[in-house]
Order: sequence, then C-alpha cells, then structure tokens
Amino acid sequence: MRLRLDLAYDGTDFRGWARQPGLRTVQGTLEAAISRILGGDAQLVVAGRTDAGVHASGQVAHLDLTGAQQERLAKGRDASPEALAGRINGVLRAYSDVAVHSVRVAPDGFDARFSAVWRRYAYRIADRVSGYDPLERARTTTVHAPLDVTAMDAAARTLIGLHDFAAYCKAREEATTIRTLLEFDWHRDGEGVLIANVRADAFCHSMVRALVGACVAVGEGRLGVDDVVRLRDEATRTSAFPVLAARGLTLAEVGYPPDDLLASRAEQTRARRSLSPDED
Amino acid sequence: MRLRLDLAYDGTDFRGWARQPGLRTVQGTLEAAISRILGGDAQLVVAGRTDAGVHASGQVAHLDLTGAQQERLAKGRDASPEALAGRINGVLRAYSDVAVHSVRVAPDGFDARFSAVWRRYAYRIADRVSGYDPLERARTTTVHAPLDVTAMDAAARTLIGLHDFAAYCKAREEATTIRTLLEFDWHRDGEGVLIANVRADAFCHSMVRALVGACVAVGEGRLGVDDVVRLRDEATRTSAFPVLAARGLTLAEVGYPPDDLLASRAEQTRARRSLSPDED
Repeated sequence: MRLRLDLAYDGTDFRGWARQPGLRTVQGTLEAAISRILGGDAQLVVAGRTDAGVHASGQVAHLDLTGAQQERLAKGRDASPEALAGRINGVLRAYSDVAVHSVRVAPDGFDARFSAVWRRYAYRIADRVSGYDPLERARTTTVHAPLDVTAMDAAARTLIGLHDFAAYCKAREEATTIRTLLEFDWHRDGEGVLIANVRADAFCHSMVRALVGACVAVGEGRLGVDDVVRLRDEATRTSAFPVLAARGLTLAEVGYPPDDLLASRAEQTRARRSLSPDED
Repeated sequence: MRLRLDLAYDGTDFRGWARQPGLRTVQGTLEAAISRILGGDAQLVVAGRTDAGVHASGQVAHLDLTGAQQERLAKGRDASPEALAGRINGVLRAYSDVAVHSVRVAPDGFDARFSAVWRRYAYRIADRVSGYDPLERARTTTVHAPLDVTAMDAAARTLIGLHDFAAYCKAREEATTIRTLLEFDWHRDGEGVLIANVRADAFCHSMVRALVGACVAVGEGRLGVDDVVRLRDEATRTSAFPVLAARGLTLAEVGYPPDDLLASRAEQTRARRSLSPDED
C-alpha cells in the first residue's frame, strides 16, 4: 500500500529535506516518527528535496508500507491511513517545526516525485518600503534598499517559457538546465512585503534563489529589466546578481495530474528518471 | 526632547517587556542599544508592558533625551531623530527579534503610557479546522478540538462595554478591574486560523488571555454563549475556562488622541496615574 503525505515545515532548524547521518533533517525526523508508530523502516519519496533552511507549506511525499506495517496500522486504535497524520504529529514534539497535514491512500500510479507536473515556490522579501517584521523573520529575507516591484515583476515575466536556465542553475554534471518556467511574478502583500510566485515543471539546484536574486538586482536598479533575459541567454553563471538566502524560500504547492491519468503517465515518467536532478 | 518610538517584537525569547537584571527583556535590549549610540542612560516608557512570550506588532514607547544625548544625536552622521530607528536596528543583531519601525519627536504632552486611550490586541488560535502551520507556530496557540467560531464571536460581543472584569483579571491589590471593552470579535483568516480582535481603554493583568480562554470554552461547547457574561458578573476568578498561553497574543495597536488634544489631556491623565495597573 502506497500512502500520500501532505507536509509543511519551517526549514530554519533542519539541514534540508534529505536524510543525513547525524544531522537533523525533515526526512529523518518524519521517518523516525513513522518507524516508531508502524515499526520497520520508513522511506519517504518527496516531490521537492528542499535545501537547508528552505521551508514548505505544501510539500508532498509518498511512503510504501510493508505487509507488517500495514498489519500494524490496521491494529491501531484509529486504524485508518487518514488518522496516521494525527499519530505522526502526536509523536513529534509540541509546536513542532514539521507537521503532517494529511495522509491518504495514494491513487494508482502515484509517485510523489515523478508524477509531479509542476512545483510552485514563494519567496518573501522585506525591503525599506515594507519595513521589517520580527514575527515573520524566519521566512523572509531582508534587503535594505527600497525595491521597485513594478520593474521586478516586468523582469520576472520576461523569463517565462521553455528555456535553458543554466545561468540560473548551480552547475551539476549530467543534469539538464532546460526547464519550463510557467509563472513568475512579483507583488507586495497587505503588509508591503514583496512576494515572488514561481512555478515551473521542475527546478534545477538553487534556481529559484538565483531567479529572485536577479530580480532584486533589477529592483535596486543594478540591472535593467531586459538584462535578466540577456543573462539567461548567455547561459553561464554570473556575478551580476546574488543567489538569495534559503530563509525567504517556501515550497508552496506541487501539481499532479488527475487520478485517472496517473496510471498511464507513471510508465512514461519512470523512463525520464535519469533526467530529473535535485530540487532547490 | 521626548522621542516617540514605534516597535515590533517576537516575544518568544524575551522575558517580557520590563527590564530585569540578568534577564533578556525587550526594554533591556532596546535601552542597551540606545545607550550604545547616544551614551548615558536610556529609559523607555511603554504603552503596554507585555508579559513574557507576548508579541507586539504596534508597540509604542517614549524616551527623554538628556542634553548630552541630544548633542550626541546632533553630531551623528545622520543626525535626525528619524534616522535613529535605523541606527538602533543596526546595533541589534541581523534578523533580530525586536525592531524599531520609526522614531520621531513626540508631540507636546505625549506620554506613551498615560496618553494612550486604547490598546488593541490580536490572539491567534489554530484548531482542528485550520490545521497547524509550523511557520506560524511562534505566534499561534494550538487547540486540538474544532472550534465553533460563530459561537465564540457571539460570546465575545456580549462582553463589550464598561464592566468590572475581575473574573477575567489576575487579582492584584489596589488595581481596578473596571475596564471599557471597546471591541471583541472572532473570525477565521484566509488560512482558517481563528483571530480574536480585542480593544479596550486598558487591560488588567492577563485579561486578554482569560477573555480568549473563556471564548475557547464556548467554542468547544464546554460553556454556553451566555455563560461568559454570567461569569463576568460573578466577578471572581473561576476554573470554568483556561487562561491561554502568551504565545498567541500580539499587541497590535495603541490609540492616542490627536496632537492638539494631547497637551491639555496630559494634565488630566497624570492625575489618573495611580489607577493604571499593569498590562497583559
């Protein structure tokens, strides 16, 4: 039986998603909690393997239960997969920095990583205009200048489409840097905080933080609106803009096909595995 | 010269507002930063002396500068009182849990504490309906039951007006418990989180946390809507409802009269000093 888990976490005190011996990671923390409840090993497969310090409000993972784990789940006082969310949260400490929002039986052919057709990230920046809110500091990057959000939004939108984003990717051998950027825009929220909305089929490593960094350079007037496309088309990393801190970045949502398309799609997707590199 | 400071802080890692030897407090942290910039002693007078763990998004304080401090301020590279906010924030650590939003010369007759005509607090609760957001855990109290926000809002509104709130105050000798509750209502925000809006001329100690605790008892069905007024009119502390945690409480706003009324009002207000007890 495969389960789908919907998750959220504050990445501040985690060394990223991926399990690492001796380090506190989101995967390690959740797998330990699940093993404690169901016994045996628990191995989560996740939609977006977030870096150290990156947050998630809409992360998705899956988990395959062994026969013994299914038996143990069925014997619990509240035996449904849905109740497992509450049981995992109960094992985590009070006011934990990671929470399971729901657990359900995954539809046929569902794979949290390879079925995903897009990922949406949000990036939050406080600037001189918005002012600094101590209560939001864990998930907001501060830039001291006042930023021109209109120019940033215009620059962001010029990048949308199927392109080689090598200039915005940390170089990794064998990993493609060709991506379809589906949405990229900026606005100020009710408090004046700058919010980037970035959606793509997938992201190469540190891509969101490079994209928002280039827009900040535009917002400060160090780059022109047209420069972000010019830099992209030069297709090599540059020091013309910074890669912003993990602190401001949140994985907000992962998109999957409708259940009835998943089973057929699963076959295709598995064939593409070798092309799918790490996430931001 | 008297300065008005507008402040925000995450109360989690402070032992409240008021300076205490050897403990990290908001007042102590800010006064140390100001002394470092202007020399001499700096003594802040605040609108709401918040308890340990209570946050503020709209706290107000004043500060009287000595002649020597005024001279030193005038000699700085950016000599205006307005620029002092940036200088104080610069002395605090990066991504500090306290921030000065603005500093300006106080209008004539202004006293951050005694000129205040009302204080507004917000209280945030995550329940089974809203789910738990790890990124908002520092300023949100969790209640595991699903809460009936309609009943809570109805109960809250019955308490509005000039009343003896002794049943909702921590007993302190010599402090009046008669208060004018100007607004008290509940709603769910866009994420489903329950938000209490509470405004009064002043609050006695732990009053907001007792008021919201009584409403939670209503929301859980342990008290009826009419019980909160009945308990208020019994005018003694009761165990019928909990006093909720400081974590969910934020001082949101402080109201002052228009500048031209402040000078005349200051005289009256000073006469009332002995009646004004501690805040939540």
